Amino acid sequence: MKLWKSLIQRKKKKREAFLKLEIKQFGHFPRVKQVLELTSSVMTVQTHIGKVTYSDLEEKICTPDQLHPKPETSALVFGKYFTDHMLEVSWDSEKGWAKPVISPMHNLQLHPGAKVLHYAIELFEGMKAYRGEDGRLRLFRPDRNMARMLNTAKRSSLPTFDANEMIKCIKRLIQIDREWIPHSTTSSLYIRPTLIGTDPSLGVASPNQALLYVLLCPVGPYFTSGFKPISLLADPQYVRAWPGGCGAMKMGANYAPTIYIQKQSELLGHQQVLWLYGPDHQLTEVGTMNIFVFMMNKAGERELVTPPLEGLILPGVTRLSLLELAREWKEFRVVERTITMAEMVEAHEEKRVLEIFGAGTACVVCPISSISYQGRELNIPRSESSLSERFFKTMSDIHYGRLQHPWAVDIE
Amino acid sequence: MKLWKSLIQRKKKKREAFLKLEIKQFGHFPRVKQVLELTSSVMTVQTHIGKVTYSDLEEKICTPDQLHPKPETSALVFGKYFTDHMLEVSWDSEKGWAKPVISPMHNLQLHPGAKVLHYAIELFEGMKAYRGEDGRLRLFRPDRNMARMLNTAKRSSLPTFDANEMIKCIKRLIQIDREWIPHSTTSSLYIRPTLIGTDPSLGVASPNQALLYVLLCPVGPYFTSGFKPISLLADPQYVRAWPGGCGAMKMGANYAPTIYIQKQSELLGHQQVLWLYGPDHQLTEVGTMNIFVFMMNKAGERELVTPPLEGLILPGVTRLSLLELAREWKEFRVVERTITMAEMVEAHEEKRVLEIFGAGTACVVCPISSISYQGRELNIPRSESSLSERFFKTMSDIHYGRLQHPWAVDIE
Repeated sequence: MKLWKSLIQRKKKKREAFLKLEIKQFGHFPRVKQVLELTSSVMTVQTHIGKVTYSDLEEKICTPDQLHPKPETSALVFGKYFTDHMLEVSWDSEKGWAKPVISPMHNLQLHPGAKVLHYAIELFEGMKAYRGEDGRLRLFRPDRNMARMLNTAKRSSLPTFDANEMIKCIKRLIQIDREWIPHSTTSSLYIRPTLIGTDPSLGVASPNQALLYVLLCPVGPYFTSGFKPISLLADPQYVRAWPGGCGAMKMGANYAPTIYIQKQSELLGHQQVLWLYGPDHQLTEVGTMNIFVFMMNKAGERELVTPPLEGLILPGVTRLSLLELAREWKEFRVVERTITMAEMVEAHEEKRVLEIFGAGTACVVCPISSISYQGRELNIPRSESSLSERFFKTMSDIHYGRLQHPWAVDIE
Repeated sequence: MKLWKSLIQRKKKKREAFLKLEIKQFGHFPRVKQVLELTSSVMTVQTHIGKVTYSDLEEKICTPDQLHPKPETSALVFGKYFTDHMLEVSWDSEKGWAKPVISPMHNLQLHPGAKVLHYAIELFEGMKAYRGEDGRLRLFRPDRNMARMLNTAKRSSLPTFDANEMIKCIKRLIQIDREWIPHSTTSSLYIRPTLIGTDPSLGVASPNQALLYVLLCPVGPYFTSGFKPISLLADPQYVRAWPGGCGAMKMGANYAPTIYIQKQSELLGHQQVLWLYGPDHQLTEVGTMNIFVFMMNKAGERELVTPPLEGLILPGVTRLSLLELAREWKEFRVVERTITMAEMVEAHEEKRVLEIFGAGTACVVCPISSISYQGRELNIPRSESSLSERFFKTMSDIHYGRLQHPWAVDIE
């Protein structure tokens, strides 16, 4: 009986230590109570017999006739062109992860009953590699994307892995397809790690088989001729995420429901949706980006505001980077807090809004020109030397090696 | 100028007529205003150049060596065994639907960038075929499942089709694999129509290519030895669907987020999740089923209550059928209205709860033995001759041809 108690005690301590580690590792977390409960079960449900190990990587390189022609940088469209190779690692609940394999880009063979095709057991990440002005190739904060990927994997009942080993495998894939990274300081290589549940069984349950794969896409500048501010539709009847849901995770399930609404906004003459939440119409995200408001507060101070990480928004790596840059500059207040449309309307009327912009991996920053809300059109000013342009320039300097920074990680 | 105005007028009238038709066709609808706006754009965004036509159906039948052995009825597990053939129809935004094809069951070849694998652009349906005691094969209300499938397709930016032609194609598939329908009046053939977005492009946008396919699975009795009531975890921190979302649609995106929570409930010793919504903890669904409460109301009348179709719950075909049966019987009140946990707790204390059960295609009805809610355990009584058993018996009589009913549609 005493032994039994001591075993329970030890298990409890181990579990608490594990939870602390989790929180440390994944940083800001929505609804901490919920997450504690969620992560606490990870110990019992995840099995990792085989591990993803870079030293096991197998390479099957294209023969010359398998290589594809590279598109002109000017012809690049987001996510349309793929490089010659892809990385794959398969997983099985009994055997764990198999060897990582780099092979020529190919179609996947999936059983039509695969869980990914029925219950959206799928997640992805998005990050970029850059060819610097000094010719060196760099990745931007891959550790952050991998930490988020692991977090999403847990919430999705998909297997986790060693982030560092995965980054090494991804770097190797990029090295092999290095010639696909555009020779341009406005273009880059988009990296799409994807994880899907593949077992052929129609039960709504955790997958016992999964496939992790990584695709690479050369992508052009998001704005071909400087910044083009976009207009937003803010309609509170469309809700992207909600407390108790998965809005903070990069799961496929968060995207399908948004497409129809995005089309609605286009039909009404806007470019993106400003996602609102709750009876007080809180600003949450814009399209698939985080949102930033730069304004004068009522005390007359300049303030950069962005919604907090409380489960309704994706914890963007660009979001985090802009916050860290701004806090380093110490030139204005930087605040993570809820912003409501009522506050926006008032600040707009009092001419206290300096700038509004989206932030994400695809565009880095994306200025906003207007918000259509309940029959009003809020026109957002554009300042001469804008904060969004300064952010964009600083981030580009880091991406393309003009500014040495620990966020830009050498690939070779 | 006059001509222009008249054209606009005509377009407006056509649109209004279309909307009326939509509402008539799809019946109860969540948030009518929203739906009106959603459906109104369908006219402009869907293209149907090629149509799904049964007379175009192409059949590639298995050679004898391609046929699979059929499992014993006693060994059937939900969604594990698939029949010898599948139906496929591919779609392209320019060419419309291609010819429907029935061919031997095979893996799908999908580009790893296919939208279904990244953004969950996918939906499905679930219905059943039965081998009657009279030897005839019957489908249960396929028109209802197809209407819901079209509805989900619109919301998912996936293409729509002629429901009657699709039912004919599905009937033909079942005829070809008719020997897979268990020779048992407790088993059946589960039918899984699936629609996925397949174009290989990473943009979050409507698919330009899609694949509709139908799989068949022989399935055993949900309860091997009579009814086994299940216990539920009702924790308001877990939310399945919310106003402005897609909870009323059979999209893959509604399922992935539930799996982790289902595991949580199992770890805590329960079998399913009772999904609550809102500060008043409204009962919405149980697991992947609709929920019914049979109780005495405060006026001392017997009342069958189920949550209303207001966007938070799936419009189940079994739900609809039970409501229609009960309204036909005229023996107790039948009400679609919001039920809160506070009301449940009070009714439980006052011993007014007669029965609680889930309803869905897989189990038809599923009695509930207890609900764990905020530290309380609500034990639900089991009456001697229960309503759920009566529903189950009536539905089974219809399924297996013991009771002639227009809901059971002949396959041959």
